[in-house]
Amino acid sequence: MIELVDAIIDLFIFKHLTGVMSMFDFSPTPEQQEMIEKATAFMDEYVYPNEKYMVPHRGLPEDILRPLQARVKEMGLWAGHMPKEIGGMGMGFVSLGLLSEIIGRSPIAPYIFGSMAPDAGNSEILWHAGTPEQKRKYLIPLVNGEIRSCFAMTEPEVSGSDPTTLQARAEKDGNDWVINAHKWFTTGAIGASFSIVMAATDPDAPPHKRFSMFIVDADNPGFEIVREIPIMGDHYTGGHGEVRYTNCRIPAENMLGNRGEGFKLAQLRLGPGRITHAMRWIGVAKRSFDLMVDYSLRRETRGKKLAEFQTIQNFIADSATEIEAARLMTLYAAWKMDQGDQARKEISMIKFFGAKVLQDVIDRAIQVHGALGITADTPLEGFYREARSARIYDGPDEVHRMVVAKQILKAFQAERQLV
Amino acid sequence: MIELVDAIIDLFIFKHLTGVMSMFDFSPTPEQQEMIEKATAFMDEYVYPNEKYMVPHRGLPEDILRPLQARVKEMGLWAGHMPKEIGGMGMGFVSLGLLSEIIGRSPIAPYIFGSMAPDAGNSEILWHAGTPEQKRKYLIPLVNGEIRSCFAMTEPEVSGSDPTTLQARAEKDGNDWVINAHKWFTTGAIGASFSIVMAATDPDAPPHKRFSMFIVDADNPGFEIVREIPIMGDHYTGGHGEVRYTNCRIPAENMLGNRGEGFKLAQLRLGPGRITHAMRWIGVAKRSFDLMVDYSLRRETRGKKLAEFQTIQNFIADSATEIEAARLMTLYAAWKMDQGDQARKEISMIKFFGAKVLQDVIDRAIQVHGALGITADTPLEGFYREARSARIYDGPDEVHRMVVAKQILKAFQAERQLV
Amino acid sequence: MIELVDAIIDLFIFKHLTGVMSMFDFSPTPEQQEMIEKATAFMDEYVYPNEKYMVPHRGLPEDILRPLQARVKEMGLWAGHMPKEIGGMGMGFVSLGLLSEIIGRSPIAPYIFGSMAPDAGNSEILWHAGTPEQKRKYLIPLVNGEIRSCFAMTEPEVSGSDPTTLQARAEKDGNDWVINAHKWFTTGAIGASFSIVMAATDPDAPPHKRFSMFIVDADNPGFEIVREIPIMGDHYTGGHGEVRYTNCRIPAENMLGNRGEGFKLAQLRLGPGRITHAMRWIGVAKRSFDLMVDYSLRRETRGKKLAEFQTIQNFIADSATEIEAARLMTLYAAWKMDQGDQARKEISMIKFFGAKVLQDVIDRAIQVHGALGITADTPLEGFYREARSARIYDGPDEVHRMVVAKQILKAFQAERQLV
Amino acid sequence: MIELVDAIIDLFIFKHLTGVMSMFDFSPTPEQQEMIEKATAFMDEYVYPNEKYMVPHRGLPEDILRPLQARVKEMGLWAGHMPKEIGGMGMGFVSLGLLSEIIGRSPIAPYIFGSMAPDAGNSEILWHAGTPEQKRKYLIPLVNGEIRSCFAMTEPEVSGSDPTTLQARAEKDGNDWVINAHKWFTTGAIGASFSIVMAATDPDAPPHKRFSMFIVDADNPGFEIVREIPIMGDHYTGGHGEVRYTNCRIPAENMLGNRGEGFKLAQLRLGPGRITHAMRWIGVAKRSFDLMVDYSLRRETRGKKLAEFQTIQNFIADSATEIEAARLMTLYAAWKMDQGDQARKEISMIKFFGAKVLQDVIDRAIQVHGALGITADTPLEGFYREARSARIYDGPDEVHRMVVAKQILKAFQAERQLV
Repeated sequence: MIELVDAIIDLFIFKHLTGVMSMFDFSPTPEQQEMIEKATAFMDEYVYPNEKYMVPHRGLPEDILRPLQARVKEMGLWAGHMPKEIGGMGMGFVSLGLLSEIIGRSPIAPYIFGSMAPDAGNSEILWHAGTPEQKRKYLIPLVNGEIRSCFAMTEPEVSGSDPTTLQARAEKDGNDWVINAHKWFTTGAIGASFSIVMAATDPDAPPHKRFSMFIVDADNPGFEIVREIPIMGDHYTGGHGEVRYTNCRIPAENMLGNRGEGFKLAQLRLGPGRITHAMRWIGVAKRSFDLMVDYSLRRETRGKKLAEFQTIQNFIADSATEIEAARLMTLYAAWKMDQGDQARKEISMIKFFGAKVLQDVIDRAIQVHGALGITADTPLEGFYREARSARIYDGPDEVHRMVVAKQILKAFQAERQLV
Repeated sequence: MIELVDAIIDLFIFKHLTGVMSMFDFSPTPEQQEMIEKATAFMDEYVYPNEKYMVPHRGLPEDILRPLQARVKEMGLWAGHMPKEIGGMGMGFVSLGLLSEIIGRSPIAPYIFGSMAPDAGNSEILWHAGTPEQKRKYLIPLVNGEIRSCFAMTEPEVSGSDPTTLQARAEKDGNDWVINAHKWFTTGAIGASFSIVMAATDPDAPPHKRFSMFIVDADNPGFEIVREIPIMGDHYTGGHGEVRYTNCRIPAENMLGNRGEGFKLAQLRLGPGRITHAMRWIGVAKRSFDLMVDYSLRRETRGKKLAEFQTIQNFIADSATEIEAARLMTLYAAWKMDQGDQARKEISMIKFFGAKVLQDVIDRAIQVHGALGITADTPLEGFYREARSARIYDGPDEVHRMVVAKQILKAFQAERQLV
Repeated sequence: MIELVDAIIDLFIFKHLTGVMSMFDFSPTPEQQEMIEKATAFMDEYVYPNEKYMVPHRGLPEDILRPLQARVKEMGLWAGHMPKEIGGMGMGFVSLGLLSEIIGRSPIAPYIFGSMAPDAGNSEILWHAGTPEQKRKYLIPLVNGEIRSCFAMTEPEVSGSDPTTLQARAEKDGNDWVINAHKWFTTGAIGASFSIVMAATDPDAPPHKRFSMFIVDADNPGFEIVREIPIMGDHYTGGHGEVRYTNCRIPAENMLGNRGEGFKLAQLRLGPGRITHAMRWIGVAKRSFDLMVDYSLRRETRGKKLAEFQTIQNFIADSATEIEAARLMTLYAAWKMDQGDQARKEISMIKFFGAKVLQDVIDRAIQVHGALGITADTPLEGFYREARSARIYDGPDEVHRMVVAKQILKAFQAERQLV
Repeated sequence: MIELVDAIIDLFIFKHLTGVMSMFDFSPTPEQQEMIEKATAFMDEYVYPNEKYMVPHRGLPEDILRPLQARVKEMGLWAGHMPKEIGGMGMGFVSLGLLSEIIGRSPIAPYIFGSMAPDAGNSEILWHAGTPEQKRKYLIPLVNGEIRSCFAMTEPEVSGSDPTTLQARAEKDGNDWVINAHKWFTTGAIGASFSIVMAATDPDAPPHKRFSMFIVDADNPGFEIVREIPIMGDHYTGGHGEVRYTNCRIPAENMLGNRGEGFKLAQLRLGPGRITHAMRWIGVAKRSFDLMVDYSLRRETRGKKLAEFQTIQNFIADSATEIEAARLMTLYAAWKMDQGDQARKEISMIKFFGAKVLQDVIDRAIQVHGALGITADTPLEGFYREARSARIYDGPDEVHRMVVAKQILKAFQAERQLV
């Protein structure tokens, strides 16, 4: 069969079959192609060689990070998720996906390209919902990479899968709001300049009208980082904080969006955020894949290269196939979003499908590396630890499966009623 | 989270983000859209209601089949895989894929739409390699659906994964060829008018030059159907024959293509054949999925609809996701082929990935139906039996994984040598 | 590593370590050992060679079956599940398991050894709950293999997972009962002499007191086999019937057990029945495994035996390991039952775990056989079709997982309340 | 079905079925039972509460560890793997397994019970192969827990799966040996008093006669810990060292065993070592399982306990079932070893099967805990990191599958030649 497959085929004889041209088009535009090439070359030359300077939970030292950021800005690849007016690239989701799968290959790259969580998501909310003053004070330095921020939603006392139970409270006192909250998994908390906090402003309103968002400066006397949570993955600069907000008094103009719009803004932030993660995961998976294939061609055991063992070949074939599937699904969801569709079902699909592909590919790459794979001598060990949370953050697999099923069941029922 | 997800989002606020338009385009052309709608309506009205008349291994009775075929021809949806000159639709692979995933929903549909194996593949070889006389005599009635054919490659004595070991022989005797062969898994043998037979013409030549193809009429005195092989799936009209060719004397003009081109033609036939199968599988999987969702909304147990159980919701979410992945991968491979690329890696990927999705989705659909699922009262039972062979025919999973791995390893090594 | 592992080790040096003797003892008694050897030899000599005479849904012809049954009775291996007083072997569950995994290797063996479903289960109920007259009239000829029987519980209109919704009714009329019911999946219905029917006698009683069991002769004028259900697997003699009971009038003495005890008796029948299935599955899996290994040592492709390919070796290793796991779990459950424990959790565990192992091992064995594997030329094709129902009958996987989880959760909660 | 299952059954009616008693006996002896209870109580009272003092890669501080060790010695549960003569418990493998699955529940317990790797394995070699002087000098303080040791086999330059390629060399110089080697993954290296080193003494001998073992004191001037390898798991005191032996001169009496016996001793060490790991994994899996069930009963989301969600119930059922399977297989292998059988196939089976169960159970437990699961606030995060190496150390999965397959194929072929 292999031999058959290796036979040379005169493909020209198929040509005439091509009549009605297909619309399904999987090719990038010239602009996208150029962006891909520039970003790839930059990764090779400037990003991978600097990975060794990454400090767990703290990222790159400033003196290494800053010049790299400057170069990215020069190249016009800074802040792909932001509109041009504010210093970003002003692209659609497909283009963002194509860039993200390159940036995703290195844990330091999102910081170098100005697209790291949670700042990217915070910028998006500020852009959409911020007042001119909020934009001036918080958004512009954030997009420029001058400051970092954090986002405070999850609380230790209640399930993250049911945000209607959040216990944080904001009470009006004169022209101020006074916030009391106990949050955790506040990514990037250490060193952040401000936090966007979700708190109940109308606890007795219907669940989706209960909450509002606020900007709290980190130097607010009531803002206290109780501890940095010891966590499996260490790729995020600023770690993950457990934070108490004790009688944090903030002026009314620090409300973000309107009163009762907290959920709407959170969803605005989370929806695209999920696809951004999925795009980045493709990059992590591809890098892991490349490391696996490369090592399998270098390492020998029992007189054969690892690549000659059928089990290893199965690892390679399965990984390549799964990455291809996840990638196409991600780009498909991005395309739907570019068409103005929420793509809620598609985003949930790639959230759990992509996270599994991510984990499986890294796992196989580690296995091929043997003992070396579980050391920090390759990026795989860090990828593996970081990847475990992908099935939890922004909604656990179980919730996303439920979302997909419910969307489908609803559509089936709607169709029935028509008939 | 569900609640969050259910919150209404003003999507217009995303709109401005869409700057550089994406090329990745997942929408059908207007012509494709029209084809899809016509085919879908025809399936609903004429195909599904006639499934009950299908006889295992024999298909639809002629008096039901013929009028349906006539309607399809009228609609212009006949023989999607063939050029217009010969009575087909003259489409590219993407268009063929979009049609095939509709036709694939019913085991009788390929016969009604003139695109059933092995006739479709045989038509393709005859079109590309046949002489004018062969086209007149064999191809035209075959494409018209007046006769059926079969294809004889696999032999019981040797592994189908290594075709260089095939033992069939054709010896020149004057102006004739005399063929001796023992073949099996000759799909559609019972009732076929002719067989395309692969036999060694130069057994001492290098493996890929050893074999040639011949057209043998079924009324040749040396053509003997030893038995109809009892086989798990029963969707193919004419069953699967074990056939002996004993001193089958045929005239020289019945050689198909040139001497020694057997492999090349087989590959030409198998390559696109594999993607056609994968396209059809999407249809089978989608039909099974629809049956599963529909039943889960109708059947109750312990006071709840099946659709309310989380395990069933997981089945639905996983199945929808896997079908989406397989579908995008199949269309991607088709698109590559439309660009003139052999897409060998992509075809092998969907061959084993798609076959697994197919089997898993049918399996879950059966499980949801409970005991009903293993009866012939729904199409699932037949789908399940038929699907088992998908991981074997046109190359077993194991070979396709090897093909994918070897393509990747070769590409990695080529890149290294450049550096 | 292999080389290391192949090094010869002086194991005597471990000996002294063995101080406290282990109680965990995995060896059979001499009686069990003798039984195993006799049964194995009989299978080789008399069972496998007669498989070719099996007729789908009808089993062995009488003239072949009867002499084989006589031999088994002579050997003292007849009706392993029955007490000695009634012509059985009077063994515990572990012994029954050891015998069943041998009998299970062939679909005709249960009929030859007098231990086929549903007769075995029916015998058990009759033995425990039957009146002396019922035992004389129904049990004795049944255990002797002179007649066959069937068991009627499942109904097409309601979910088999929720038996409290069964709609069959039995109404007292003078000294008679009049039964009206619509049943299906009545295994062995065609040719059965009588049916044990579950019907509501007190529809308004609490669910578990509603039903009673009745013996209905097949020649009752109201007993009508509507159709033989076309079903995927074909190993059961008498097929699977859809049966209507229309005003079936039967005398009061044909009630089996007491009024309202239907559930209790059904559970009595199903509990051990499930483990009997699991025991038999080990036999099917082992036979499939042996066929796989044997073929892998005989068949060559690309100049190598299949057994030399690492993927095939993985199939072998995984299959052997999973069979070992399922076997130990089954024997463990049997042992618990021999101690007087209901082993409800353990039985549910092997029900779903064993059914998966069964399906996976057959699946791999088919894959190794390639196209041959999906033909009836080996037993694998029939095993595969039959095995699909294992995840459905006697409770679907989903229910058994629920049972296991609820048992565990209940135990955890009980322990907490103690503390 | 649940309802059925919940029905009360008079089990006495089964009793008479129990005739031939089963030998398969899954109950512990009274001595084992007592050991289990004592160890369990000690874990509850003294081990779990001290886990919080564990320092990654360094274990418990001496002032906490020492008094706990003293208590264990008093209880007679010290060094279960060692004979009584030398201060151990003198048990067989089954008993050791029963104890190990308790000790395995906590990463600090092996140190408290005197059974931690690599000291346990080193003690075994020293006991079997050591001279009286070596026993006095190294074994006695090691078994007493006064010193720690390490074991040096793996080298960065060659594949650990093929030990015949090890490059370490020992050359005779007068009455001394001079060792040069570059080793890594030397567990416990930091703080060890001595290392057992595998080095080639006869590089030209047949592979299995090439190597010998030597005891090298850590204060040997040529012994240099190049670095502590940054590694995913952190449960081992003393970490994992990369160690250079540069012209390490040692006296002839420091050879362990005879010249050329290195492989034999390594295998002696690794064989039982593998089963000891598997035993311990059962404990890790059970602890993770308990944490999962417990949390599912405490945590609520959307108004329901996690334990009420069917997906979580599936996690519980699958985990319990897989643990049961792995446990029985491990005890079965131990039992075979107690019978004087090498149980090579069974040990390889549990090596890869058990490692997968371990990983899957921890993974599900983390998923149930959500974000909490990936923090160090529960033991799960550490378990997860440590567990990844289980599929690599003492032979990767791939090698163990090969061992199982080869053993089976060899047995099949042997049987054929008999026939």
